[in-house]
Amino acid sequence: MNDLQIANSVNPKPIQHIAKQIGVSTDQLEFYGKYKAKLPLELIDEEKAKKSHLILVTAITPTPAGEGKTTVSIGLNDALNRLGKSSIAVLREPSLGPVFGIKGGAAGGGWSQVIPMEDINLHFTGDFHAIEKANNLLSALIDNNIQSKTRNLGIDPRTILWKRAMDMNDRSLRNLIVGLGGKNGGMPRETGFNITAASEIMAILCMSKDLEDLKARFARIYIGDRFDGSPVFAGDLNAQGAMATLMKEAIMPNLVQTLGHNPAILHGGPFANIAQGTNSILATKMGLSLGEFVVTEAGFGSDLGAEKFFNIKSREAGLSPRAVVLVATIRALKYHGGKPLKDLSYPDVDALEWGLPNLQHHLDSLKSFGIPVVVAVNVFSSDSTAEKELILDYCIKQGVPAALSEGWAHGGEGCEDLGRLVIEAAEGTKSAFQPTYSLEDSVEEKVQKVAKTIYGASGVEYSTNAKKQLKKIEKLGYSKFPICIAKTQKSISDNEKLIGRPKDFKITIREFEFAAGAGFIIPIAGEILRMPGLPEVPAAEAVDIDREGKISGLF
Amino acid sequence: MNDLQIANSVNPKPIQHIAKQIGVSTDQLEFYGKYKAKLPLELIDEEKAKKSHLILVTAITPTPAGEGKTTVSIGLNDALNRLGKSSIAVLREPSLGPVFGIKGGAAGGGWSQVIPMEDINLHFTGDFHAIEKANNLLSALIDNNIQSKTRNLGIDPRTILWKRAMDMNDRSLRNLIVGLGGKNGGMPRETGFNITAASEIMAILCMSKDLEDLKARFARIYIGDRFDGSPVFAGDLNAQGAMATLMKEAIMPNLVQTLGHNPAILHGGPFANIAQGTNSILATKMGLSLGEFVVTEAGFGSDLGAEKFFNIKSREAGLSPRAVVLVATIRALKYHGGKPLKDLSYPDVDALEWGLPNLQHHLDSLKSFGIPVVVAVNVFSSDSTAEKELILDYCIKQGVPAALSEGWAHGGEGCEDLGRLVIEAAEGTKSAFQPTYSLEDSVEEKVQKVAKTIYGASGVEYSTNAKKQLKKIEKLGYSKFPICIAKTQKSISDNEKLIGRPKDFKITIREFEFAAGAGFIIPIAGEILRMPGLPEVPAAEAVDIDREGKISGLF
Repeated sequence: MNDLQIANSVNPKPIQHIAKQIGVSTDQLEFYGKYKAKLPLELIDEEKAKKSHLILVTAITPTPAGEGKTTVSIGLNDALNRLGKSSIAVLREPSLGPVFGIKGGAAGGGWSQVIPMEDINLHFTGDFHAIEKANNLLSALIDNNIQSKTRNLGIDPRTILWKRAMDMNDRSLRNLIVGLGGKNGGMPRETGFNITAASEIMAILCMSKDLEDLKARFARIYIGDRFDGSPVFAGDLNAQGAMATLMKEAIMPNLVQTLGHNPAILHGGPFANIAQGTNSILATKMGLSLGEFVVTEAGFGSDLGAEKFFNIKSREAGLSPRAVVLVATIRALKYHGGKPLKDLSYPDVDALEWGLPNLQHHLDSLKSFGIPVVVAVNVFSSDSTAEKELILDYCIKQGVPAALSEGWAHGGEGCEDLGRLVIEAAEGTKSAFQPTYSLEDSVEEKVQKVAKTIYGASGVEYSTNAKKQLKKIEKLGYSKFPICIAKTQKSISDNEKLIGRPKDFKITIREFEFAAGAGFIIPIAGEILRMPGLPEVPAAEAVDIDREGKISGLF
Repeated sequence: MNDLQIANSVNPKPIQHIAKQIGVSTDQLEFYGKYKAKLPLELIDEEKAKKSHLILVTAITPTPAGEGKTTVSIGLNDALNRLGKSSIAVLREPSLGPVFGIKGGAAGGGWSQVIPMEDINLHFTGDFHAIEKANNLLSALIDNNIQSKTRNLGIDPRTILWKRAMDMNDRSLRNLIVGLGGKNGGMPRETGFNITAASEIMAILCMSKDLEDLKARFARIYIGDRFDGSPVFAGDLNAQGAMATLMKEAIMPNLVQTLGHNPAILHGGPFANIAQGTNSILATKMGLSLGEFVVTEAGFGSDLGAEKFFNIKSREAGLSPRAVVLVATIRALKYHGGKPLKDLSYPDVDALEWGLPNLQHHLDSLKSFGIPVVVAVNVFSSDSTAEKELILDYCIKQGVPAALSEGWAHGGEGCEDLGRLVIEAAEGTKSAFQPTYSLEDSVEEKVQKVAKTIYGASGVEYSTNAKKQLKKIEKLGYSKFPICIAKTQKSISDNEKLIGRPKDFKITIREFEFAAGAGFIIPIAGEILRMPGLPEVPAAEAVDIDREGKISGLF
């Protein structure tokens, strides 16, 4: 059975039954159909949240297929519930665009999925649509102001960094010229579209404390400069009220269920390179308010996802994970050991051993946060017994608890060993995490500390352009922001060809960007694609729906 | 109180209570929050629908403020319910874009509104978003195919008529060049965005019988030509399955309530010039399946909305209205009598009398359909007693039943007189409507018949370009489609300056378009704006939301 077939083989429970498990009554829910509901923000209880156990799931350096963090998170969540803990999986919501590209959905896999899988991967509760509208309303207001005769702010169209957004893999929208067709068609200028997940609106949603904070952050969005060089913000266009109004429902976290009928909260899904790559602060706090355990994840390997989870999100929200689960696959470790992608299904103990330094690197850098780490070996049917033994032995020798995670094949039952280790680690944790840098550090110091402590780099270099941009950022007063380094997820370094555990490398910051509303500086150490394209054979061509509404080809 | 304040002064009933009034049980509903729900298509009962009474609300030639068809429809619906009939208002759902432009919402006015008004005017249940995504997925597939090396269909980018869609007033998107930035950014070409309501996807949704029909219509969408001149359709890109999948929820009509707590179904909202300008066939049939009466409306004056309602929608769906309500305002008639817009609040019996020929024209042309007409005088507080008496007397002398409609000020109670006349007319109607033309007529004959019978034109002229385009349409085999004439709503003629009842004019078809999926030919007799802009002071600037989520400035 494929993922869609597995998902459809389980009858979801009415969502009010899932809500009841975590003490939420039917009339507190905002239903979206029978199996999805929004949770009002009033349910967040900061005091209760502080007492609950936050578990962060991160991963080694992934192969293109990903390491299965979401699958492990969902399996672990179901296991914790089986072990008598009230646990909630709190995850990102998937983007619609990529569903029609290469891959199918992004809601876990096998017997560790969240359902209704089709809805979650398509429109879900409309959050991405609302983000798109808020984003594009600001764009329309910008272009309208440039066109305005009486209320023109003098925005220099060449400086506008704000782009439109669309949740679609559509490369033709990356670079375009709008405003053609003469005087009535606006002022011609170069611009483009980002995919919605790459919009700063998404990053802001996931950083916001409440509706007021969301609105205040919208007002602080930097648009570009006036002809006199002074900065223009969304607030100068009085955009924030209408933008926040469009987000009235989107700000509420979404409740769904796992295949094991345990609660899952999905909310927000920002990019993990130019943004924080994890679900909203509000969703995490909602989960912690309603459950004893929250299992959450952050995008790509620990060098990207976990680092940002700690230094950006947790610091901003006053959160501290009680344990970190590091997901590794035997396949990926063999890849880091030099085995070609196409051969990863063949057992190869030597390649696995050669790949272990990648795992070791992630263990070492995670250690810097002072939070216990548990390794989850996400099992594939192609993994051999010898391989599984090798990796578990390796971890035990390092003194790191490790377990096989068989959530794909067996759901929560397949993750009970992992669950026990996680409970033990989390319940023994008393102190909060140690950040990698202080917000008072200079931007260069922050980058240096992340590069050395997290990436193991020997140093950092800056392009001339980056230095110039940094000056502007400092002048605008953003030096106290945390940093959100954008680099490849394929290597611990900024060179995607350096697999395994690269040594003696420097990273190069080519550019600086900043997200004034979300509240971070973005040092860019690589090419960042914010609008994907469709492949030669788009997945969309295989998607179909019959007269009864049954969907096929989504996976 | 403004409309938003009035709307918020009434506590909506939980939507399952409204559903119960029309025999729909809670578990048949797909909830969207507490006050909105989608109705599954299984509730449509063709036999029951045939027995119910369909009432079409149309209008005289409107002033820019509109004649209040929606307000009259909602008031009439509440009145029919007060008079003991089970009646459902079946209306278009409003577009989000214009809410941030000049005007506020479009969900009736005063004490004749549908609620929750804010939700209905913002994201509602996501139908417009789904339409946008289906539209833009097709666009992405087109550009991806042009870029394709192995599966290129040879589409000539210069011939592509299919545009992207966004529900936003954003003039800068009217004309643009996409695909810039080199080889990886697609193939540069000129194109543009339509506002979502102007998308053929919207027209198709509103013409579809079911999910299969929707999908088949999507496959028939004409995109452009190959370099060899042969046509390319969405089906050639295998787009229809994924597009229909995106419309899985959007195809279901939406149930809300009026301020009088009576049922209202809102579904679809196509333009009334290039498209049919009325809610979906499915929604109308849903209403007729669940109520004894359905009150519905169609955009602009009867020359546009009613003509298309009969000749396109009713013919396709096998519907026949039992009565037509012609909405007139004293203000508009004074305008047609020559009074300037700014002076319409001053009583002027002479101007009113001079304007009556416009009313008479609409009565005459509606007579051609063979369905009884009732005049509803939509009352404004500025109307004088003498003016009201004049217009009622005029109608009585013509043998046309007429009543004051005070839905704005008094809700259903203010429309009871109208309700009684409508019941009497509808219950006495035994035969189906007479279409203006036969589908077997040639395209020119169809245009000629509408121009003469409905507009009172003396003839039709065609531009050279239109003649050429017509040849292509005939060659493609679309001659049997009904026609959907796009012309100004400000005049019965195609010249917006000719107010009142113009005589001795010809209309000029400048261009022909066609909507192969929706299934009609579009003779264009004027400038058609498919992407509005924002005004100097966009309404968005005044919209705000406070920390409790209370919205202000939406009206």
